[in-house]
Amino acid sequence: MEHIIIIGGVAAGAKAASKIRRENPHVKISIYNEGKFISYSACGLPYFIENLIEKPEKLLIRSPKDFENKYKVNVFTEHRVTKILPNKHQVEIIDLKTSEKSTEQYSKLLIAMGAHVCIPDIEGTDLKNVHILKSIEDAIAIKDKVPKCKKVIIVGGGYIGIELGEAFVYGGMDTTIIEMGPDILSHLDDEMSQEVHTYLTHEKNMHIITNNRVTKLVDNSEGKVCGVETESGKKLECDLVILSAGVGPNIDIAKDAGIAIGKTGAIKIDSRMQTNVRDIYAAGDCTEQINMITNKPVWVPLGSTANKQGRIAAINMTGGDAEFKGILGSSITKAFEYSMAKTGINAKEAENLGYNYVCETITNKDRSGYIPGAENITIKLIADKDSKKLLGAQIIGKGDTDKRINVIATALTAGMTVEEFQHIDLTYSPLFSTSIDPIIVATYELLKKL
Amino acid sequence: MEHIIIIGGVAAGAKAASKIRRENPHVKISIYNEGKFISYSACGLPYFIENLIEKPEKLLIRSPKDFENKYKVNVFTEHRVTKILPNKHQVEIIDLKTSEKSTEQYSKLLIAMGAHVCIPDIEGTDLKNVHILKSIEDAIAIKDKVPKCKKVIIVGGGYIGIELGEAFVYGGMDTTIIEMGPDILSHLDDEMSQEVHTYLTHEKNMHIITNNRVTKLVDNSEGKVCGVETESGKKLECDLVILSAGVGPNIDIAKDAGIAIGKTGAIKIDSRMQTNVRDIYAAGDCTEQINMITNKPVWVPLGSTANKQGRIAAINMTGGDAEFKGILGSSITKAFEYSMAKTGINAKEAENLGYNYVCETITNKDRSGYIPGAENITIKLIADKDSKKLLGAQIIGKGDTDKRINVIATALTAGMTVEEFQHIDLTYSPLFSTSIDPIIVATYELLKKL
Repeated sequence: MEHIIIIGGVAAGAKAASKIRRENPHVKISIYNEGKFISYSACGLPYFIENLIEKPEKLLIRSPKDFENKYKVNVFTEHRVTKILPNKHQVEIIDLKTSEKSTEQYSKLLIAMGAHVCIPDIEGTDLKNVHILKSIEDAIAIKDKVPKCKKVIIVGGGYIGIELGEAFVYGGMDTTIIEMGPDILSHLDDEMSQEVHTYLTHEKNMHIITNNRVTKLVDNSEGKVCGVETESGKKLECDLVILSAGVGPNIDIAKDAGIAIGKTGAIKIDSRMQTNVRDIYAAGDCTEQINMITNKPVWVPLGSTANKQGRIAAINMTGGDAEFKGILGSSITKAFEYSMAKTGINAKEAENLGYNYVCETITNKDRSGYIPGAENITIKLIADKDSKKLLGAQIIGKGDTDKRINVIATALTAGMTVEEFQHIDLTYSPLFSTSIDPIIVATYELLKKL
Repeated sequence: MEHIIIIGGVAAGAKAASKIRRENPHVKISIYNEGKFISYSACGLPYFIENLIEKPEKLLIRSPKDFENKYKVNVFTEHRVTKILPNKHQVEIIDLKTSEKSTEQYSKLLIAMGAHVCIPDIEGTDLKNVHILKSIEDAIAIKDKVPKCKKVIIVGGGYIGIELGEAFVYGGMDTTIIEMGPDILSHLDDEMSQEVHTYLTHEKNMHIITNNRVTKLVDNSEGKVCGVETESGKKLECDLVILSAGVGPNIDIAKDAGIAIGKTGAIKIDSRMQTNVRDIYAAGDCTEQINMITNKPVWVPLGSTANKQGRIAAINMTGGDAEFKGILGSSITKAFEYSMAKTGINAKEAENLGYNYVCETITNKDRSGYIPGAENITIKLIADKDSKKLLGAQIIGKGDTDKRINVIATALTAGMTVEEFQHIDLTYSPLFSTSIDPIIVATYELLKKL
């Protein structure tokens, strides 16, 4: 009997399992998952800690029981796949609760093992009150500390660091982010990051230290963290540390099985989610993607991509034919009233990739100024002087950034030139925008430079 | 000396005046405007009546003084241009305050006379407490009635009718809309209108009568309206009536001057905003536009279009070269928590135009279901079976409709096929959308039918 085995059941894996069942009512499907929970929204974890969501169960999209009863999928949680044997079409598995080992035959295999948090190689990462945020279990552990701890240090100022920072400030904690790079949110250009930085420190009382590296987590002599030391010699007290200075793709067992790893360090797949090994597919955070602007492989682990890739893999694994055309790295995150959105490439990336590029930045109200609640947004557009095409955009501010970034993401997918893009007919009502939307205004200005 | 005369100073005219000045610091510019106010947001009038905006001055984008001092534009308010003499490059003007007549020479002329409210040919439209909403003066008069009147009847269930309905309900008035068509908001397909209709009557206590025509406004014998009678014999009491059953383009003096009028009844212009008469341009609600989907002329008077056309006219009138590629009729309006957005053509229009079309409608949450404030949106996509291209969309609901309709408007401008559109990479955060956005989900479903 045909048997599809899926390693990992959070985003890509869970999406694939339900889609495979819809495409094929008969095939045997098994998910092996290291953690207790499958099919949950990892992106929602900071909002559970913030208490916007009270119970972690709310983050579950489908429960293991749903999968077993409704989708007839065998779900093995707390099971680790330790080895893939492509020649035998087998996987070796260990039950983490009982340490029992077993092997299982697959007809087709989907690797959806996700990513892991990188633990910096410094003293003290094993102390109490030092946490990472990856799983629901992690989130429960952190949430438990929010009322008890008073001073938190977040190592790393990426998405997760910023989102957790918001949760801790709302929780009444003294919150410090330490970022080793020149500024937080390194996917944005420096002046955009700087605007967010200023907002967080001036309006939200967050402490942000940049260009500095944590070199040691200090033991209170009872095995609990009581502070950090940095490269520059700073000593800071704290009673909680979050390590969020980087993530990496889970590739070890894939690599051992001879599956090709790309230049980015993640699993290499084609547009149908196939690896170089017959009958083995991969999807989600453990794989690299093609950037639609540069046509180069990148590793941008995002829940939206994982879900789409899981769906595409499922269609192809059940005899269908679907392609994943690539990504733009479109993303959005929120910190208090501010949101920060990006699509395509930024100026730093354009520079490094050797584009002959031009930028335009404007700050405008997001809707008619007389409407209560109208707020500023800062829009930065990047275009290619040679092809005259849009390359990317960043939009940040208290106003509605998401709407505009998605318009640009659509234009990027369509490969529109700036000249073509200026003619888009967007909706207008004073409640929703200005009569000529800020992105059009920015486009008019950008055109002058092309 | 070169002299640009602009007839009408609300949206297209005001935009053109400021843009002409930026393009040419020396040319003489004069605006003649019938009303007291120029350069204001007509789309904001319902929100002034609703008291979301307290003072009408807030709606002014630039004051006549701003125009005179900052832009060196001569502004003649309460002046009517009564005749255009193309052979002499002259206009005849009457000062409405003094009845004084004059003529003025122009080098180039911009007709931006806008639209008027159509007054139905029935008894009683001249009674007291019977109003239209077109100008700031109208809005001030209506707002004055809101605390005094108790029962209002709105004749016509288009945008303005619905937006005023909201204002009156918030003002504590018993509010009835009478619409002669099969349902309110006729730019939407019937089942979409019906959903809004149900929401307004069930959740907001508005009364809506459709398929009925007001035949008489009843005099209380003191010259004040006290009720209406309808075609079906209904008699309804009221102490305030708003006539909002249609608008028409202001074309009379243009037509008299030999300027071509299009099939739609509005002034015909080319993509550079030129009429058929040398040195005479037109822009805004008095002109017709080309629908980018059908390539046919349409008359869709909207503030966004007027502003863009005014800008394009200004560039071309000062020796530059800019084109207006047409419209999609993209629009959005709000009624309480609901918003209703449209772009491209709807199924009714596709049917009438003879397209071999297909539709897909889905209702989904606008963001992750576990986030407080996640709300439903209903998305209807329309595509052409022959070209496989998107033709249009309607999105309504309590959730975020605007973001999605603008994504589709961008895809329509780019001429994307449904197959191409499915690959758009939109931002995802549980606070802003679902991991696979509802429009992508709808697109996947639509693809199955193509």
